[in-house]
Amino acid sequence: MRAFAMLKIGQTGWIEKERPGCGMLDAVVKPLALAPCTSDIHTVYEGALGQRHNLVLGHEAVGEIVEVGGEVKDFKAGDKVIVPAITPNWRTHAIEEGVPPQHSEGMLSGWKFSNIKDGVFSEFFHVNDADMNLALIPEGMTLPQAVMLPDMVTTGFHGVELAKVEFGSTVAVIGIGPVGLMCVAGAALRGAARLFAVGSRPLCAETARQYGATDIINYKNGDIVEQIMDATGGHGADHVIVAGGPSEVLEQAVRICKPGGVIGNVNYFGEGEFLRIPREAWGVGMSHKQINGGLTPGGRVRMERMAALVMHQRFDPGKLVTHTFHGLQHLEDGLELMHHKPADIIKPVILI
Amino acid sequence: MRAFAMLKIGQTGWIEKERPGCGMLDAVVKPLALAPCTSDIHTVYEGALGQRHNLVLGHEAVGEIVEVGGEVKDFKAGDKVIVPAITPNWRTHAIEEGVPPQHSEGMLSGWKFSNIKDGVFSEFFHVNDADMNLALIPEGMTLPQAVMLPDMVTTGFHGVELAKVEFGSTVAVIGIGPVGLMCVAGAALRGAARLFAVGSRPLCAETARQYGATDIINYKNGDIVEQIMDATGGHGADHVIVAGGPSEVLEQAVRICKPGGVIGNVNYFGEGEFLRIPREAWGVGMSHKQINGGLTPGGRVRMERMAALVMHQRFDPGKLVTHTFHGLQHLEDGLELMHHKPADIIKPVILI
Amino acid sequence: MRAFAMLKIGQTGWIEKERPGCGMLDAVVKPLALAPCTSDIHTVYEGALGQRHNLVLGHEAVGEIVEVGGEVKDFKAGDKVIVPAITPNWRTHAIEEGVPPQHSEGMLSGWKFSNIKDGVFSEFFHVNDADMNLALIPEGMTLPQAVMLPDMVTTGFHGVELAKVEFGSTVAVIGIGPVGLMCVAGAALRGAARLFAVGSRPLCAETARQYGATDIINYKNGDIVEQIMDATGGHGADHVIVAGGPSEVLEQAVRICKPGGVIGNVNYFGEGEFLRIPREAWGVGMSHKQINGGLTPGGRVRMERMAALVMHQRFDPGKLVTHTFHGLQHLEDGLELMHHKPADIIKPVILI
Amino acid sequence: MRAFAMLKIGQTGWIEKERPGCGMLDAVVKPLALAPCTSDIHTVYEGALGQRHNLVLGHEAVGEIVEVGGEVKDFKAGDKVIVPAITPNWRTHAIEEGVPPQHSEGMLSGWKFSNIKDGVFSEFFHVNDADMNLALIPEGMTLPQAVMLPDMVTTGFHGVELAKVEFGSTVAVIGIGPVGLMCVAGAALRGAARLFAVGSRPLCAETARQYGATDIINYKNGDIVEQIMDATGGHGADHVIVAGGPSEVLEQAVRICKPGGVIGNVNYFGEGEFLRIPREAWGVGMSHKQINGGLTPGGRVRMERMAALVMHQRFDPGKLVTHTFHGLQHLEDGLELMHHKPADIIKPVILI
Repeated sequence: MRAFAMLKIGQTGWIEKERPGCGMLDAVVKPLALAPCTSDIHTVYEGALGQRHNLVLGHEAVGEIVEVGGEVKDFKAGDKVIVPAITPNWRTHAIEEGVPPQHSEGMLSGWKFSNIKDGVFSEFFHVNDADMNLALIPEGMTLPQAVMLPDMVTTGFHGVELAKVEFGSTVAVIGIGPVGLMCVAGAALRGAARLFAVGSRPLCAETARQYGATDIINYKNGDIVEQIMDATGGHGADHVIVAGGPSEVLEQAVRICKPGGVIGNVNYFGEGEFLRIPREAWGVGMSHKQINGGLTPGGRVRMERMAALVMHQRFDPGKLVTHTFHGLQHLEDGLELMHHKPADIIKPVILI
Repeated sequence: MRAFAMLKIGQTGWIEKERPGCGMLDAVVKPLALAPCTSDIHTVYEGALGQRHNLVLGHEAVGEIVEVGGEVKDFKAGDKVIVPAITPNWRTHAIEEGVPPQHSEGMLSGWKFSNIKDGVFSEFFHVNDADMNLALIPEGMTLPQAVMLPDMVTTGFHGVELAKVEFGSTVAVIGIGPVGLMCVAGAALRGAARLFAVGSRPLCAETARQYGATDIINYKNGDIVEQIMDATGGHGADHVIVAGGPSEVLEQAVRICKPGGVIGNVNYFGEGEFLRIPREAWGVGMSHKQINGGLTPGGRVRMERMAALVMHQRFDPGKLVTHTFHGLQHLEDGLELMHHKPADIIKPVILI
Repeated sequence: MRAFAMLKIGQTGWIEKERPGCGMLDAVVKPLALAPCTSDIHTVYEGALGQRHNLVLGHEAVGEIVEVGGEVKDFKAGDKVIVPAITPNWRTHAIEEGVPPQHSEGMLSGWKFSNIKDGVFSEFFHVNDADMNLALIPEGMTLPQAVMLPDMVTTGFHGVELAKVEFGSTVAVIGIGPVGLMCVAGAALRGAARLFAVGSRPLCAETARQYGATDIINYKNGDIVEQIMDATGGHGADHVIVAGGPSEVLEQAVRICKPGGVIGNVNYFGEGEFLRIPREAWGVGMSHKQINGGLTPGGRVRMERMAALVMHQRFDPGKLVTHTFHGLQHLEDGLELMHHKPADIIKPVILI
Repeated sequence: MRAFAMLKIGQTGWIEKERPGCGMLDAVVKPLALAPCTSDIHTVYEGALGQRHNLVLGHEAVGEIVEVGGEVKDFKAGDKVIVPAITPNWRTHAIEEGVPPQHSEGMLSGWKFSNIKDGVFSEFFHVNDADMNLALIPEGMTLPQAVMLPDMVTTGFHGVELAKVEFGSTVAVIGIGPVGLMCVAGAALRGAARLFAVGSRPLCAETARQYGATDIINYKNGDIVEQIMDATGGHGADHVIVAGGPSEVLEQAVRICKPGGVIGNVNYFGEGEFLRIPREAWGVGMSHKQINGGLTPGGRVRMERMAALVMHQRFDPGKLVTHTFHGLQHLEDGLELMHHKPADIIKPVILI
């Protein structure tokens, strides 16, 4: 089968691979819609995961099941499914300990696609533990909406969960690419009142407003920390969500956050040996500014819940999709868009 | 001054009282808008708080400050303010213990108006600790919107907080009078997906849909527990909010709630020596169906946060107001509406 | 094989059953030590679970593995293991939802032994999902210590968890049978300061003091609610743990608990259609007295953690064991002791 | 009056100051026992708080009230009281927001003594809001025990709270000076099983064992991260408490902590512009290793709860006190001991 892969750091290309086999609990899926992600760019062009050879890229997919293992109970060939980017093994001692399933076999181990096994940019791909990890696409949901759920929506909403947004609180979202926009939508949907969206691209700013941002903060107008501190009369934000940017954004988050506030990070930091916490702004260690950072939950129930929000009209992730291609071969074009980010891009989708 | 009071159980009327004095930290306020509440009905006609003589009724008000004490820093005569129904004393040992401020001087002690002191249905009324308990009415907020904040909005939203609603979860709200409708609005605003609203009055049902309910459950169509269990394939609701009804609603809530789910009660149970938990449905004591019941938070910051939600267009409490009267003398008419509840009433407001 | 069973409500006896088979993930175990439980008494003599015929009794065991399924990785025949009373299935959608694993396939479904399958009072018994549910007996732990872990210790400690005991808080434990004594030990180990133990049997009272109780409250000296309210100057307990008694104990717990406090119930309520919450003491629904009731966690990690506490000398569950028998045939004697509770019994153990 | 002060960075000495006045809610106290703290060393010799002139040092005291303000209700001259290091103002909007009272008027604002006002190393000192911030010394408590409560005990225990220690979990405490030893005692008292204490001084190591440490980790035997990872079979600690050391300890804490674990910091980081989080060990931002750092709670109820733990024999803080001086003039000697830390010192106390 054909697959679009990272050949080595800095280089992508089409390769031939064998169609994956299917374990007793697993499924093989052919994609109906795919989306390239900034993470793919990190992986290929920054080598953020280290050297890889002929690793199939991609972790955002919805598809049609072509084969299920003998012990799969709830799914069958032909079912159209949402495939979460994070597909943990669920029957592990870490889960007994209360560790988030995302880390059930070690840190980040739930992130399998294009990380510890081949990704979804392929004619077929393998899904571990189908009953626990797949969710049916609800009737009436469009493919572009559906393919935003595996990563963009759930990751964005997890930022809101990590930051523990409360009714009427003031929230700042740093970074308004597609994940950050879902942080904005999620914060509004969780009851934020004033909602700062930090970003500079006009299309993203406009979309942030549509998703519920009340103030757009653009670094071109000055230091973002100062802008937010000024706008809040020196109070700072109750909750800060970090959804993109270089390692400096965590520093900014600590500065923006009020004492006793909460920082939720869903940004994948791609570079450097260390992130930095500003000592004084963190109260010389004693500010009670809680710092949470975590990989989005995955699995079936999570996808079903995200899908239920869409089907009950709580928000529409379809607004993220600015470009639509038809045909697997356009994966390359989609990835290029994420790489070079022209002004009119938020998120491309490839329909197959 | 004139005031509308509970003369004794079962009887209301206008009385003359002296204008209240003003302590060093306190304020005296004249009302701009008032709203009668079902709680007033409980107090007067069911004697739910016991016998009282010439107790001024009412705990939902916005008004204009006419006098402040010598140590009040943030407010002055002429300021237009939201007056929360719950006005705790904040400097107490209970708060040091982490007890909710609503109970800072004993259970329910934060609920002062028309409970442990005269209420707001009067030409003037007294507010303890103005700096900590009053909030300015934001520019652009209408009086009918504003007067929904002191009790209806904050109590409804507290039901959502007590029930710990999560993104994409299934929620049932039992009771869709004005507080229940704010539970519905709050649950939608907190990220509920499927949202059952249990009630039978057509206007309330229609308004519940506008506030985000996805399913209306009417007891006239059969047992509400069965209806919700059927609709969820036997799963039950993840979160149940009790916002009205006789003592039986708590039993129903336990039956509707899934194991490991959460019940949040903001209903004021007015009758009977006991509430009942169904033993088997509660897992013979071991179901992990958590039962929370609590008085709404009050105070200044709570009002400011509720107001901020309105000003940032997260929801509109004004839809609750079905009847508007002009003139203090119409308090009696408003209260009668809450007492007899004609089909077209949700909530009356008296503008002064 | 021989097994000691509930023949029908009110009648026990020895029966012959086939030795259980072993699924791919499972184990068959022969007991090394067994303990009868008050729950067995409820099941047999009160019919609390309904009618059953020839159901093997018992859910407290440590034993030696005699057979493991083909997919078991961490255990082999000959291993000496702690068998938790609660052995959930772990790979379920309920766990994805965040439901406690104890209810992973429906309410109380993790409680399998002598409830939904044969118990452990038998020459051999079956354990589902050995890798996830069994734990090795640590070297140096005695069998009587070890056999307290499957239910007594973990259930008692879960009461403390449900009641959310904090450093220096005042705790009341109602019921000081063996589970209640473990609530006492757990509360002391979790940082309670003043610790009321409510019970009347002198041996249990003395043992409660050894486990950390600071005050013994005996109903023979007057109403227990009044005694505790008096002893705390009307403040009540910050946390109340219910570990035994008839349905009235929940009422007492609500009365003893301060506003904003937490009640944790691990009592198995055996009778009556309803439990009762006193309306006024519960603040007419709004006291913020949280009511939690739950089945203990089970599974491997829980057993390992409880065992680690014993091995690191944090407490000694061996003090619970007042009677030791040798030989499976003495199960009957042990059960009789739990049934009739002579003055010198806390907990009997049968060594095999 | 005489007072021992920081004259400027690097220099201490005795000065004369006027005896402080007493506000309506306040008290003036003369010390009965004082303890110098490493924080005083930071303040004077590292200039960690910046330049100060003639600032009276010290924040650990118990004393006798000599004067109370006209509105103080619960205390009178002659009362012997515990004076918490942290004395917040309690009637603030931050507390309404749910911000920890320690930050009620801005970050770290609850820390007043020898920070934003004169400290306690003086013949007399001022305490704001006596009713809310002072606690009686319980009968039977020794002065050396009592004077460990204002900072050492409560700060150590707060580390345990921030790290969210659970029954049977594995905990690492980095730093075993007096605060770290109280982290050890607190972790044991909160239910830790295996308990690593990281430090190199033999007396502290021995005392850590007495307080419940099960393993001593000495950096002289190799990298502490490797030692703990090896000792836990690569699992890491469930909870890490940082109680001392240079800024590198936070990095080590992140490395030692398991994914999904919790880090609690009570260390006062005295130097450098930034603290550092190791990017990869923190899961490139997504490890769910929660980082909490906070100033200890203070105030009356906190002191009462800590005192109740001592009086109920849950632990004995008196073991910290290795040196006792008699007479205010020996403050200088005590401070020198904290500065140069000879092998036999844990904590000195000055009795007056």
